[in-house]
Amino acid sequence: MDKSLTSNFPIGKLTIMLALLQDHEWRKTIEQQLTEGGYRFTIGRVGAMDMTKVVAAIETAAKNNKIIDSESYREVHAVYHAIIEAIQSVGRGVVQFGEILRTVGLTFSIVRGRMSGVVEHKGEWIGICVYGTIGAPKKGFEHETIGFGFNHI
Amino acid sequence: MDKSLTSNFPIGKLTIMLALLQDHEWRKTIEQQLTEGGYRFTIGRVGAMDMTKVVAAIETAAKNNKIIDSESYREVHAVYHAIIEAIQSVGRGVVQFGEILRTVGLTFSIVRGRMSGVVEHKGEWIGICVYGTIGAPKKGFEHETIGFGFNHI
Amino acid sequence: MDKSLTSNFPIGKLTIMLALLQDHEWRKTIEQQLTEGGYRFTIGRVGAMDMTKVVAAIETAAKNNKIIDSESYREVHAVYHAIIEAIQSVGRGVVQFGEILRTVGLTFSIVRGRMSGVVEHKGEWIGICVYGTIGAPKKGFEHETIGFGFNHI
Amino acid sequence: MDKSLTSNFPIGKLTIMLALLQDHEWRKTIEQQLTEGGYRFTIGRVGAMDMTKVVAAIETAAKNNKIIDSESYREVHAVYHAIIEAIQSVGRGVVQFGEILRTVGLTFSIVRGRMSGVVEHKGEWIGICVYGTIGAPKKGFEHETIGFGFNHI
Amino acid sequence: MDKSLTSNFPIGKLTIMLALLQDHEWRKTIEQQLTEGGYRFTIGRVGAMDMTKVVAAIETAAKNNKIIDSESYREVHAVYHAIIEAIQSVGRGVVQFGEILRTVGLTFSIVRGRMSGVVEHKGEWIGICVYGTIGAPKKGFEHETIGFGFNHI
Amino acid sequence: MDKSLTSNFPIGKLTIMLALLQDHEWRKTIEQQLTEGGYRFTIGRVGAMDMTKVVAAIETAAKNNKIIDSESYREVHAVYHAIIEAIQSVGRGVVQFGEILRTVGLTFSIVRGRMSGVVEHKGEWIGICVYGTIGAPKKGFEHETIGFGFNHI
Repeated sequence: MDKSLTSNFPIGKLTIMLALLQDHEWRKTIEQQLTEGGYRFTIGRVGAMDMTKVVAAIETAAKNNKIIDSESYREVHAVYHAIIEAIQSVGRGVVQFGEILRTVGLTFSIVRGRMSGVVEHKGEWIGICVYGTIGAPKKGFEHETIGFGFNHI
Repeated sequence: MDKSLTSNFPIGKLTIMLALLQDHEWRKTIEQQLTEGGYRFTIGRVGAMDMTKVVAAIETAAKNNKIIDSESYREVHAVYHAIIEAIQSVGRGVVQFGEILRTVGLTFSIVRGRMSGVVEHKGEWIGICVYGTIGAPKKGFEHETIGFGFNHI
Repeated sequence: MDKSLTSNFPIGKLTIMLALLQDHEWRKTIEQQLTEGGYRFTIGRVGAMDMTKVVAAIETAAKNNKIIDSESYREVHAVYHAIIEAIQSVGRGVVQFGEILRTVGLTFSIVRGRMSGVVEHKGEWIGICVYGTIGAPKKGFEHETIGFGFNHI
Repeated sequence: MDKSLTSNFPIGKLTIMLALLQDHEWRKTIEQQLTEGGYRFTIGRVGAMDMTKVVAAIETAAKNNKIIDSESYREVHAVYHAIIEAIQSVGRGVVQFGEILRTVGLTFSIVRGRMSGVVEHKGEWIGICVYGTIGAPKKGFEHETIGFGFNHI
Repeated sequence: MDKSLTSNFPIGKLTIMLALLQDHEWRKTIEQQLTEGGYRFTIGRVGAMDMTKVVAAIETAAKNNKIIDSESYREVHAVYHAIIEAIQSVGRGVVQFGEILRTVGLTFSIVRGRMSGVVEHKGEWIGICVYGTIGAPKKGFEHETIGFGFNHI
Repeated sequence: MDKSLTSNFPIGKLTIMLALLQDHEWRKTIEQQLTEGGYRFTIGRVGAMDMTKVVAAIETAAKNNKIIDSESYREVHAVYHAIIEAIQSVGRGVVQFGEILRTVGLTFSIVRGRMSGVVEHKGEWIGICVYGTIGAPKKGFEHETIGFGFNHI
């Protein structure tokens, strides 16, 4: 088989697909690559009308699942900025939900590990992806959205 | 097989995965679902240090591949706002590349068709996804990024 | 009389002047042009210290006055983005009122119909204008502001 | 006649209507109120694909028409911030035109004078309104937009 | 001694250093220059998880310490915009604290007076500096931040 | 002498004062604390009408003065985001100079080292401060501005 079709995904694609494929059989492939690549990862879900809950849910998941050391301010700082980047993508410049009567239902993924590519970079990086729906608090009056944040850790 | 594992992806996931999987065998599955679902779609690539080129490349691809009718201002207006939304995600609030010495190498996907879900919505929608790298104009000094815009058309 | 002095206003001017002229005799001329042009329109008032109330008031007025079909997500989506555009103008980049101790007293207008001009465009468009005062919650410590949003519907 | 129908407009409405009514007979009424109210005012036009030209055109008009004293940094500072506010409304958060392939054709008005209302405020204020079209650089593929900035001077 | 080492600081530096040096002996030098230069000034402290409290604390301090005339809308307007500028620096584009689970502990300074430099400008200006920490509501998980706003008054 | 008057400044204050005090005798005290604290630091100057030059000047200074390892993407990434944070403060939300006809003359400082405080944090941090003037490209028609960015490295 053509190698380009089977070679591993980079850390960003793994993070994004982990959030996208939560109910799909391809998720096994993604998780296998994550495990073989030595990544720490987790996924979670959060539904909210205010950003505070979304930030808290992701931050807590990162700590509770030992993706980061909750006693290290460096790591908390890195995760925090990656979360804000991901959420800014969801809001597309307007970083509020409840304020503008939108509600989000999000699946989020957190992936920590090495970034490989053209150049082999030292140290670890953290990727956070949020995927779900944003819309009016009325079933069906919502559409999909995705956000991705990335930082050195 | 568990139906939840094989059922079709919604329009947003199809758009995002079309941009993500350009070199991967899963792309066939995505394109098959797009074709069977009656969607119009295309993909393209653009590398640039300024946003103007990215906007123009996506807009042109949408017109040349008949995703939209280039003579309809309504459709051009819908695509334009979806492009801006997608690019705002990439820049995460700062909608400039060259100005801040970043360069992007992006694969973009454009998908037009019906949105199905809890409620069956009339009319068509357009999704635009840009995936690639953003960083310094130096090989390897860049990381992945993704953006997604969505609009009624 | 010079025709250029009497010819009809385009949809945007009609929307803006409808919000501006609520107590003025010129309003009759505006309403007459709106009726003759086959536009659906309404006006309303809202005073608030938080954006949520402003968004809700305009959205509700659009639905209750049959400017849009409240069961159509497409139309709700179009109105919602036009409202956000109009409110972003009022806040001039900072889309919060209460958070920064400002209060607004706004008259809003909603107009739906055809856009005419150099080119005759198919389909309908929606314009939303908010005009009023923004300032400290103290009588007289406020100044005028205006915002306008426009979208295809 | 009902006094509320004939009483004078406040400074913001005068500024906005001066920009809106450039070809309409109502403009005479607006100019008459401006003259009787002791306001200094001017109007101008600018078409551009980049913001620099718009800012420069308005700033130059304010100086050349003696709306402000070009040797006073205080007055230049006041006008500058009012222009930025007005333009931010036009771009609705995204303060670039050419960068995102939009072109604007704007009529602008500048009005300087007293603000009257519930409380009589000392000193003068400056209002700037820009009205016109924003869109693709293709005739007819554009829609109306308005922006308003206000500052003490 | 070299005159360049001893000459007075301009208004902005005085404002910034007043906020920075609250516990340091250099503060006396700053306050002496402020007094000799005929500036009105004050400092205060505020800790909060929401911006409303920060805006209110600075606005109140400006009024209570007679830096501005609380009955003059012009002066309140000038101070208000200077506060918003200073706080926007602290949030670096994202003007919310509590919403994104950050808490701030700030020392603020307010200075009003003449601006001297290459050109002698008429009238007075107001500078506002906020300096402190921003971070998680957990001791030690925070870092320093500074913001500065400036306006004619 | 009261210890609180002589104890060392934290990293942020050192960075800010290094940029502020370039011509003042107090600078020696700041540099002494930086040297004794084991910090790497540098200062530089840049005047420009576009942000690209400012970003490039600071990035180059950080590399040339060995504040960061120019071959480490992690360190370049950390510096880059600190620069953007500092510049966003200068522009107060609007991250463009030339576009809005402003020119800046900035002194910048870069400081790298440990952050001490209530909790002793592992690893190093980088602070970047830009101080100078922003205004019209006309001598004297400008006022002071300051920006500060901070990141883990």
